[in-house]
Amino acid sequence: MSGIGKIVIIGCGAGGGTAAQFARKTDRQAEITIFEKEKYSQYSKCGLPYTISGKIPKFSDLIEFSEDWFKKNHIDIFLETIVDKIDLKSKIIIARRGMKNHEKKFDRLIIATGATPSIPPIQNLKKNGDLIKGVHALRTIDDGERISLSIKKGKRATIIGAGLIGLEMADSLHQRGMEVTVVEALPSILANTIDNDMCESILKELNKKINLFTNHTATRVEEHDGKIKKVFIKDNETGKEKQVDADLLIIAAGIKPNVQLAKSIGCTIGKTGGIVVNEKSETSVKNVYAVGDCTEYMDFVTKKYVRMGLGSIAVRQGIAAGINAAGGNYKLPMGFLLTRTSEFFGIEVAAVGPVEDSCQNIPIVHGKFKGSSLPDYFPGGKSVDMKVGVHEKTGKIIYAQAVGSNAAQRINVFACAILNEANVEDFKKLETAYAPPIAPTLDALTLVCDVVSLKLARKKR
Amino acid sequence: MSGIGKIVIIGCGAGGGTAAQFARKTDRQAEITIFEKEKYSQYSKCGLPYTISGKIPKFSDLIEFSEDWFKKNHIDIFLETIVDKIDLKSKIIIARRGMKNHEKKFDRLIIATGATPSIPPIQNLKKNGDLIKGVHALRTIDDGERISLSIKKGKRATIIGAGLIGLEMADSLHQRGMEVTVVEALPSILANTIDNDMCESILKELNKKINLFTNHTATRVEEHDGKIKKVFIKDNETGKEKQVDADLLIIAAGIKPNVQLAKSIGCTIGKTGGIVVNEKSETSVKNVYAVGDCTEYMDFVTKKYVRMGLGSIAVRQGIAAGINAAGGNYKLPMGFLLTRTSEFFGIEVAAVGPVEDSCQNIPIVHGKFKGSSLPDYFPGGKSVDMKVGVHEKTGKIIYAQAVGSNAAQRINVFACAILNEANVEDFKKLETAYAPPIAPTLDALTLVCDVVSLKLARKKR
Repeated sequence: MSGIGKIVIIGCGAGGGTAAQFARKTDRQAEITIFEKEKYSQYSKCGLPYTISGKIPKFSDLIEFSEDWFKKNHIDIFLETIVDKIDLKSKIIIARRGMKNHEKKFDRLIIATGATPSIPPIQNLKKNGDLIKGVHALRTIDDGERISLSIKKGKRATIIGAGLIGLEMADSLHQRGMEVTVVEALPSILANTIDNDMCESILKELNKKINLFTNHTATRVEEHDGKIKKVFIKDNETGKEKQVDADLLIIAAGIKPNVQLAKSIGCTIGKTGGIVVNEKSETSVKNVYAVGDCTEYMDFVTKKYVRMGLGSIAVRQGIAAGINAAGGNYKLPMGFLLTRTSEFFGIEVAAVGPVEDSCQNIPIVHGKFKGSSLPDYFPGGKSVDMKVGVHEKTGKIIYAQAVGSNAAQRINVFACAILNEANVEDFKKLETAYAPPIAPTLDALTLVCDVVSLKLARKKR
Repeated sequence: MSGIGKIVIIGCGAGGGTAAQFARKTDRQAEITIFEKEKYSQYSKCGLPYTISGKIPKFSDLIEFSEDWFKKNHIDIFLETIVDKIDLKSKIIIARRGMKNHEKKFDRLIIATGATPSIPPIQNLKKNGDLIKGVHALRTIDDGERISLSIKKGKRATIIGAGLIGLEMADSLHQRGMEVTVVEALPSILANTIDNDMCESILKELNKKINLFTNHTATRVEEHDGKIKKVFIKDNETGKEKQVDADLLIIAAGIKPNVQLAKSIGCTIGKTGGIVVNEKSETSVKNVYAVGDCTEYMDFVTKKYVRMGLGSIAVRQGIAAGINAAGGNYKLPMGFLLTRTSEFFGIEVAAVGPVEDSCQNIPIVHGKFKGSSLPDYFPGGKSVDMKVGVHEKTGKIIYAQAVGSNAAQRINVFACAILNEANVEDFKKLETAYAPPIAPTLDALTLVCDVVSLKLARKKR
């Protein structure tokens, strides 16, 4: 498996860094080079909210593989280096660090250029092209450090977006003693994570701790002495405007994939705006791979191409691209399951498979169940709400969602079920582990399937 | 699905009680009768150690379905009633409560007679056929109450057997302030639960808290004033004898299935001594079902008949027998996965599939991995040790074992994998849920499969 020669990787996030590691594991001789525009090598972007909250002591703790680590593994790494151009014909990367230009020949190229926060069209948000003082998106350690320095106990923070990152940030800022407002344009929170009807317990908790405006759009901001002061939000239904005082404004309204370089060499860009890759993380251009937030790939269930924005997926694509670029043969499953989780205000949330709104062409029968982590007679049981959707005709499990105790590991069981295209009638009989201090004889994860199974039986009558 | 008529159930433990419930759900008209020799209706035997420890306040808390509950659901229940005879020809049960005889006609019969603790041949253990004072087995609420009354802080307790119940009891008695000694005849602890090489962290913890003698057999006891005083144990290798002071002696050396009634009507008894049942929980005798600790059924992986002694399995067989006896059609998977878990001294243990010693005819390649519940950079990660065994030729997952953080739910993922006959090469790519405060990008449950996969690849070279 040797003899590939030169592998160049653009970007040293979770995807690019992992690709470098697995290329090195696959071919000990290959010349591997990474260009990264930030000043840090592979670090956990997902850890940023927890560093801002103070749970993780320092931003530098987030660095999972240091510059030195890459060097020790004979991987050339160039930080603070921007790739300006790819000359596909000559197979040369043209990069620049400050005033200094680099040219680097490649045999195989891995594009891991990530994504950039989407900035919604809010009036007065920018001045001379930059966000005004006190307005931040959260993507990098630099962003995190700037936000952290802006936090003042007792002051007011507004967050645009009630997705995972928005709510993680809401929790972090709340923990740091700020008065937090979250503004979400959609009618409910966590739109891409779980269905509306699973948000109840989370909404209850949020309404105790923060101000939440769903179905509201931020329209403009007002500054004072060049610093954010107020956010104006509009009720999407009534059109009524409110103003929210804000000493800090965080934009958590999704991301746009960085595909300019890939586009410049002819890589196919998909409908969702990501670089289209296959199960080997290959792009449409020979010897060019792409991984992570800049890509789009199939959803395992719907077989539609989707963007993911999940670190866990970037890492898995990185493994595939790294091994394949180095001459190995590694295939990902035919689509991602989109297994996802988070925790905020003490509530664990997890899901796998498309949310119900994304299942347009699939006839879904779903069931819900409110379970407990422990048998009724054992003190200390915690609630876990579950929802499972199955295909009405085939009974195949399509998605599962959990809110509460051990949501993530319960969802991992469903991830395995979906990957194996398990039928709900078989899955409901799964022998789960039981012991009084750990789990009930029948776990919520199969009991919710009994509910679905009953509904299916009624439909067939 | 009506018209079955009379269903009689012998035994109201987890299996029998559940069978009654599901028979009732399946046929609202059927006449359902339960005979139970104890004075309590369906209660959790598995909860006994935690009531003894004080975690569960009262023994009566363990009752999951009361006598009233059954009556309200139009199920006739006779407690403290012993079934003496089954007249198969006339389809009549002959039972007795005190001096009063009952005869009951049945169309379908469910045998849920449970099991009795095995009492090892220890000299002087019995007097006039009864265990001497201070010696107890743990099977019933009555046993639990007697043990609880015998506990004295600072006094010495010895437990015979280091299986799940032995160690749960060791933890309970330790929590109640007793000085605990555990004597195990086998060379290691938890022989039917996990492999020896997975016991390290547990042994380390046990050795801090209790006295443990593995590979030692209790040979005789000494009494004083009719009460246990000393236990003599023999090193199985050297033959050397030791004596252990004991104010309380608990026998936790396994169980014997109660099969006399089943045998008397010609039900096939298997090699392990249990009533042989099939995937519908039918015995070899028409219209007679059996469930729970008195039965034996196939191991899903080895397809050998095994006894289980797990509450979770009794409940699942109860569901099958109840539905089928009432005229429904419910099939269990073709064998049990033996998914099991427990927790003692703060360590969670779980496993699924046969222990490696029971895989005699299967060529196994196994891998081990020491993981963490959280990413390295996130404070508070807890260790989880995993071991997975796969079939050397097919790559199918045969068993999985976990010790540490969230062991049970991690093992549930493997239960799903084994039920779906998943291959380790596919399973290792499972997209598990990731978020910094919840789980790492790559969970120990797939990383251990990478280890196995590498070993398999090396074997194929």
